[in-house]
Amino acid sequence: MHRSHPRTKFRSGCPLNASVEILGDRWSLLIIRDMMLRGLRSYTQFLDSYEHIATNILAHRLKKLEAYGIIATHQDPLDGRKLIYTLTQKGMDLAPILTEMVLWAAAHEDTQNPELIRQIKKDKQKFIAAVRQKWVENSSHTD
Amino acid sequence: MHRSHPRTKFRSGCPLNASVEILGDRWSLLIIRDMMLRGLRSYTQFLDSYEHIATNILAHRLKKLEAYGIIATHQDPLDGRKLIYTLTQKGMDLAPILTEMVLWAAAHEDTQNPELIRQIKKDKQKFIAAVRQKWVENSSHTD
Repeated sequence: MHRSHPRTKFRSGCPLNASVEILGDRWSLLIIRDMMLRGLRSYTQFLDSYEHIATNILAHRLKKLEAYGIIATHQDPLDGRKLIYTLTQKGMDLAPILTEMVLWAAAHEDTQNPELIRQIKKDKQKFIAAVRQKWVENSSHTD
Repeated sequence: MHRSHPRTKFRSGCPLNASVEILGDRWSLLIIRDMMLRGLRSYTQFLDSYEHIATNILAHRLKKLEAYGIIATHQDPLDGRKLIYTLTQKGMDLAPILTEMVLWAAAHEDTQNPELIRQIKKDKQKFIAAVRQKWVENSSHTD
């Protein structure tokens, strides 16, 4: 367990509370979804995503996710003035949370993307393993 | 799939986004934790919980969770002026999300409650089944 972020104290010692303090807002998990499931990796790509995040909120959330060690930044090898964002191991470990959140909303709300839901329902562990595998392959190209 | 809440449109059709719009704040999942894992069921009990939620925020979140069909309110049989709050089936179905959030924070942050973490790690499905069973038993007393 390595904490790279500056915070030393959560509101309580409850592990659920720690997750809620880090992830509990209306945008962070969507940025992680875009990186994990859609392969997005630049600021402009995140801005253009489905839910139209505002640029100041995006900038704030990226800083926060980096401070918590969930994402990392690298210089874009094709354009040194640009940054690319990648998930760390800690960020990839959010896959089971995202998967359960997709299943819950699919069961109880009016949502789309039936193909994603079908894949997860068919074999949740296989779905998560495939997402991890893709991340491993892409990581080896950027580091 | 039955939606009792007034909203007809999320920011996108993505099921993860729906979950984030409903659950993505710093308090809702803690109220659900208090009901699901600690058996709390009154406004005063939620106020007194570990993280010291403010009364106006608690009132707002309870209304929101009820509007989304995640919790239900009943008259307290011992004191008709008081309300008791219980999880609905939709609320209980959040158990896998909470479980994964506990595991993630336990792996990556400095948290407490090792006994809870041990139980979940030992057998996640058994843990969730036990939580559900307790809810079924308590529900039969209040309805």
